[in-house]
Amino acid sequence: MKTEIIAIGTEILSGDLINTNTPYLNKKLSNIGLEVSLNTEVPDKPGKLKNTIKASIERSDIIITVGGLGPTEDDITVKAIAGALGRRLIFNKTAGKWIKEHFKKRKLKCHKINFKQAYVPEGTICLPNKIGTAPGLLIKIAKGRFLIALPGPPGELKSIFENSVLSFLETKRKTKKVIISRIIKTTGSPESQIAAKIKGLMRLGGDITMGSYPHPHEVDLKITVTASSKKEADKKINKIHNILKKRLGLICFGINEDTIESVIGKLLTSRRKTLSVAESCTGGLLSNRITDIPGSSNYFISGVVAYSNAEKVRILKIKKETLKKYGAVSCQVAKSMAKNLRKMCGADYSLSITGIAGPGGATNKKPVGLVYIGLADKKGCRVKKFLFLGSRPVIKLQITEAALDILRKSLI
Amino acid sequence: MKTEIIAIGTEILSGDLINTNTPYLNKKLSNIGLEVSLNTEVPDKPGKLKNTIKASIERSDIIITVGGLGPTEDDITVKAIAGALGRRLIFNKTAGKWIKEHFKKRKLKCHKINFKQAYVPEGTICLPNKIGTAPGLLIKIAKGRFLIALPGPPGELKSIFENSVLSFLETKRKTKKVIISRIIKTTGSPESQIAAKIKGLMRLGGDITMGSYPHPHEVDLKITVTASSKKEADKKINKIHNILKKRLGLICFGINEDTIESVIGKLLTSRRKTLSVAESCTGGLLSNRITDIPGSSNYFISGVVAYSNAEKVRILKIKKETLKKYGAVSCQVAKSMAKNLRKMCGADYSLSITGIAGPGGATNKKPVGLVYIGLADKKGCRVKKFLFLGSRPVIKLQITEAALDILRKSLI
Repeated sequence: MKTEIIAIGTEILSGDLINTNTPYLNKKLSNIGLEVSLNTEVPDKPGKLKNTIKASIERSDIIITVGGLGPTEDDITVKAIAGALGRRLIFNKTAGKWIKEHFKKRKLKCHKINFKQAYVPEGTICLPNKIGTAPGLLIKIAKGRFLIALPGPPGELKSIFENSVLSFLETKRKTKKVIISRIIKTTGSPESQIAAKIKGLMRLGGDITMGSYPHPHEVDLKITVTASSKKEADKKINKIHNILKKRLGLICFGINEDTIESVIGKLLTSRRKTLSVAESCTGGLLSNRITDIPGSSNYFISGVVAYSNAEKVRILKIKKETLKKYGAVSCQVAKSMAKNLRKMCGADYSLSITGIAGPGGATNKKPVGLVYIGLADKKGCRVKKFLFLGSRPVIKLQITEAALDILRKSLI
Repeated sequence: MKTEIIAIGTEILSGDLINTNTPYLNKKLSNIGLEVSLNTEVPDKPGKLKNTIKASIERSDIIITVGGLGPTEDDITVKAIAGALGRRLIFNKTAGKWIKEHFKKRKLKCHKINFKQAYVPEGTICLPNKIGTAPGLLIKIAKGRFLIALPGPPGELKSIFENSVLSFLETKRKTKKVIISRIIKTTGSPESQIAAKIKGLMRLGGDITMGSYPHPHEVDLKITVTASSKKEADKKINKIHNILKKRLGLICFGINEDTIESVIGKLLTSRRKTLSVAESCTGGLLSNRITDIPGSSNYFISGVVAYSNAEKVRILKIKKETLKKYGAVSCQVAKSMAKNLRKMCGADYSLSITGIAGPGGATNKKPVGLVYIGLADKKGCRVKKFLFLGSRPVIKLQITEAALDILRKSLI
């Protein structure tokens, strides 16, 4: 089934709005085995939009339009679709009711202009929008061929897509095969080393494909399998996953939506352990990542960002002589930071970070990216030295990733 | 001049790679007054790509292709361009020399396959790539009409575009008018209130356009003016900017690339003042935003993330009775956090945050999004109460924005 996505909005082509909807739809469609063959982004120009939609109807089986469903004069998608299909606009009573209810629930006055969103091309099935007033539109073009129009605000688009469109498209796929993807998330090893270890697996062929996607702090491996049943697909994917785990070992930290901070959250919760952190050059990013996880207050006690040396002495009780003798960026200071904080706050684990995030602050012996990471637990404190390369935000990200990974490895 | 961008890569359409290059080019082209009329994203399929490029040559004056210039078999852009133009590939000696030098500089062995990147369509001017081995390609299609091919890695694309393409396109623009844009950044006021205050300015018409772009924590207003000289354009834009500042007042915090944390950094530096922060529900995000600014160690002393009540008592010396009587999320606790930290660490300013980021932790009287923000200085401590709506990360972002804005207003 030829599938394409058309995103509509002059603000996209002027670079004033980043279109996150198309990448979202690409991923979701790919996960159910629908290959998208074309993405386009076009301005809000009535004639041009009508022609774009007309051309898409001629070449594709599934067309998804994004944006331009609002109540104002600038929102021209519905009219363009009606024009391209040669259908007239009619008032959809269900959509009208939804719009009325939307305003009533919020105790807001409903203006006549708002009902513009209930006028849709003849033969449209309106899809409910739980967040806004623009209904999604599902229009049959011909046997097995459909045009779907979704609103531009990402929350509304996702809600309609996940509640009404995804399962519909799954039933319409021509292949009755099951397609499943799984992302294996790794950290601590560069893509080239991973590639060397899994040589041969990247081009297995047949019903299995594998891709490698590097990020500044992690490498994702995506396995996709096609099979005649969910059971068979699961079996296949588990087999490859097990081979990967055997070859790659501890660097695999999770799958799909897992983050290293969510994995640590689960480990700390199940082991009933607590954590505190003492940061310097990462400036709070480590605490922030840990507390991005809902419920982190169950295991996270406190974080200290001791940016100045005086505060390292005051809050973390680092000895002035240690700072003077070894410097703030040193194994000895990292060790004291973690050990002292753990003792003072009573956490099971304390992580510490001291380093140079750049672009300034480097010396001859201590370059940008040099960092010492400490982990204190009841057995004592170990410190590891790293050297990271990149811009300030990339270095901050990589340091916190390494710190979280040291804790993860210690927990498993 | 009709301009379009074609991004090439199956990994974009499968949702495995987010194409950040097209939005980057859209913004850069818009800033020099080139209106992009179409963005497309297509897979690495030779026949299809050739047809896409052929169609673009028929309808547009400037075509920019992105990606597919690598040395492997999967990289098919150059061949597709040659096919679409009906030109043969010839070895470009300059590009060959660049490739050789690239490997020599890095003390790496240069393989025969690497020279594939020096074969380009007849009549191509190769553009130097300071980062990688793929040269950019500049191909004249007809009088005043050009195809430009850029590599996919964003660093390489930006480097070639900014060093060789941007100034070239400026000279080719048919209009000799000067086009200048300025983004006015605002915080603390919703888009609808801003719209009401600047009514009439949004549709000035003529050579001035204005757009409003809301983010969860800020609203950007973009002014674009066209004039016959740089001087006249600057005059026009300054005039509108001044009207905006008069109507909107303190909510305008900066322009273009400014962030609220960079603005505060400049204010603290110029006033030689220091800052420390005590956070609870924002979990380190406030410290992290402040320390994202290079050189922040000149004014940022320390941050404390006192997540547990015990740590609020231990590190921030909050009285147990205060916590018991008013609860951790209260005006009284916010006040003590800021005042106590300031006194202990000797900073000129201390910010404090205590609230409920959600999704859990709410009570009947204290809903998700409730927060108290304190600012202590030599004159004392003021606390402001807010209620934010949204997901956990959005609420964390909005709270830290409000805290930074309180400090900014106090500094000016």
